[in-house]
Amino acid sequence: MKLLKGGLENVPGYSFSAVECGIRYRDRLDYSIIVADGLCHAAGLFTTNRIFAAPVRLCRERIGGRIKGILINATNANACTGDEGYRNAVTLTRDIAEKLETEPENILMASTGIIGRQLPLEKMMASHNKLVDGLSRKNGTMIPKAIMTTDTVPKSVSASFKTRTREYVIAGTAKGSGMIAPDMATLLAFIITDAPLSPEDLYVIFRRAVSKTLNSITIDGDMSTNDTAIVLSPVSLDIIEDAADLQKFEETLELILGGLAGMLVKDAEGGTKFVRIHVKNAASDDDAKRIARAVAESLLVKTAFFGNDPNWGRIAAAAGYSGAEVSEDRLSIYYGDIPLLLKGTPAETDPEKLKSVLGGRELTVNIDVGMGEYEAVMMTSDISVDYVKINSEYAT
Amino acid sequence: MKLLKGGLENVPGYSFSAVECGIRYRDRLDYSIIVADGLCHAAGLFTTNRIFAAPVRLCRERIGGRIKGILINATNANACTGDEGYRNAVTLTRDIAEKLETEPENILMASTGIIGRQLPLEKMMASHNKLVDGLSRKNGTMIPKAIMTTDTVPKSVSASFKTRTREYVIAGTAKGSGMIAPDMATLLAFIITDAPLSPEDLYVIFRRAVSKTLNSITIDGDMSTNDTAIVLSPVSLDIIEDAADLQKFEETLELILGGLAGMLVKDAEGGTKFVRIHVKNAASDDDAKRIARAVAESLLVKTAFFGNDPNWGRIAAAAGYSGAEVSEDRLSIYYGDIPLLLKGTPAETDPEKLKSVLGGRELTVNIDVGMGEYEAVMMTSDISVDYVKINSEYAT
Repeated sequence: MKLLKGGLENVPGYSFSAVECGIRYRDRLDYSIIVADGLCHAAGLFTTNRIFAAPVRLCRERIGGRIKGILINATNANACTGDEGYRNAVTLTRDIAEKLETEPENILMASTGIIGRQLPLEKMMASHNKLVDGLSRKNGTMIPKAIMTTDTVPKSVSASFKTRTREYVIAGTAKGSGMIAPDMATLLAFIITDAPLSPEDLYVIFRRAVSKTLNSITIDGDMSTNDTAIVLSPVSLDIIEDAADLQKFEETLELILGGLAGMLVKDAEGGTKFVRIHVKNAASDDDAKRIARAVAESLLVKTAFFGNDPNWGRIAAAAGYSGAEVSEDRLSIYYGDIPLLLKGTPAETDPEKLKSVLGGRELTVNIDVGMGEYEAVMMTSDISVDYVKINSEYAT
Repeated sequence: MKLLKGGLENVPGYSFSAVECGIRYRDRLDYSIIVADGLCHAAGLFTTNRIFAAPVRLCRERIGGRIKGILINATNANACTGDEGYRNAVTLTRDIAEKLETEPENILMASTGIIGRQLPLEKMMASHNKLVDGLSRKNGTMIPKAIMTTDTVPKSVSASFKTRTREYVIAGTAKGSGMIAPDMATLLAFIITDAPLSPEDLYVIFRRAVSKTLNSITIDGDMSTNDTAIVLSPVSLDIIEDAADLQKFEETLELILGGLAGMLVKDAEGGTKFVRIHVKNAASDDDAKRIARAVAESLLVKTAFFGNDPNWGRIAAAAGYSGAEVSEDRLSIYYGDIPLLLKGTPAETDPEKLKSVLGGRELTVNIDVGMGEYEAVMMTSDISVDYVKINSEYAT
């Protein structure tokens, strides 16, 4: 496989469009669409929140069928909007379907933004002609911008891989920023490829790749009502079935999703640091994940990262309350390779060396539980003064 | 029962002392002791963190016996300090016991402060003469100050109650501020009374009262390694056994603990608001607690409180990911009595009225789940810019 420059526009067989609809703010791209030339199989993973947005309900109903395109709006989540919110999503996708000369159920929808407000239906309907007229392959560059909320940079990755017969491309874009938690964050991610897979292979591979990537990041532990990750793959009589070829597809998909996951954490709301929590030698797989998540979500740990504060005691405390099997006399904690706690005893550390590791833009925390042989990795950010500022003024 | 002015000094049969030992900082009270005239029964509740401090281990070993006093230090948690940390706690309590002419195992110890540093043993031993010489009943006023870490105000409550034969007093003091979570927060709480109870009654009543008070508050969801709540009651041949009298004791104890819990939340690190999360009509007791806790600990909800931001969608989202049975079309959310969401439909709200409710120093969030008949209350604070500032610079 080979990383490519650019993003969605690298994938043959798709076109894109985005407009400034004025859904919540003026003068910004906020409404966009991804359209396949033909019909696609789609696999989707959605929030596990029991309160989920109208577009998530719509996707769950439609995703098993043939998919032509995905309609996406930013700045309004269309969540907690009752039956009216759902009817609005149906109305919007039906109108787009007509204009694309396809069936309503071939259009998916995804939304992100503030919860509890109805979409400005008329305004959005009025922009559909412009949206459809603007469709072109080169406009793939607009989608990453059009789906942003508090993200500060657009995010996209693309890569190619070769089967024994030909070369294919996978590309993806995502938005995140806040309300990011495992089990799907407030995260919209759209992956497209010209590689044709069976719907079963597509789902199984997508699920596995998301679990290793998008579901291993956490910013604030808050799980959104709107999390949506969708992959599109063209319906074809000539699908990729060979195990070695499917393996290449999976590795490339993981590269794309892993790249997007890293970008999401690096662009965390107010975040100043990219932190990997690497748990080793836990008693079970669940225990390893529990510890990684408890540490990655501890507010005290994350504010200490922000302040370059070597307060590793908070990491030990979070491991201790994670619910996993932990014993002080077996626990070791390192920043990078600098030991801070060795089997329950505070280590002598060189303050200068520690300062240089802590002061960097990236940090790996290694936690050796000493109870077994399982490991887990969670990627997270610090929590800064700016995080609080951003999130205390979001609705107003 | 009757609330009294003052605190620990109101309880006959105890004396107190506190000194500026210089454990971590100069010129502040940081080392103190509570001593009973005779021997006491004690009940204690401790952190459920698997990583727990040396003094917690020491208390767990000794609390079933007869107790003469409690030695308390602030600014150093004596946690993650290995065997040396435990030996230090033993040495300190043994020396104090000698000076008080009692057995070493009659002295409990509690510590709070930074994790992972050894106590300055020599300095502390050197202050023991002064500590014991300073013992007097009136010095009860010093204890609330001497146990503070980032608390901004000392906390104490006292109250009296009458049995059919005489009047008794209960008084308590506590420190908290950050790292506060249910199941015992970083919270030290010491309750003393001249009311003699059987050790069994004392434990059962204390446990029940703590569950309704100290275990219903959360500030940042981080559970400490040092949480300790202890109640002392004099050993006596003439114990309170009558059910009605025990009931009065319990009500008064709840008043004391509830008062302290409220003070802890109001003095939350960087907190600007006192928020009650009141969950009603949940499908089960567990569900009610899960929702209350998920909402009370959501970083996005708490930063919105700080910004007076009516972003109730974040409350719905937190209820949705709490793990409890929640259905959007039954969920209602109110700030005070102002509806924001009514059975899944956003309510029309008067912005002016909303502003005045949100702008206040206290706020009650009412969540009607509409699934059953169980309720739960959690008290919490907002998360402010100052919270992050305080916690990013704690160790340095």
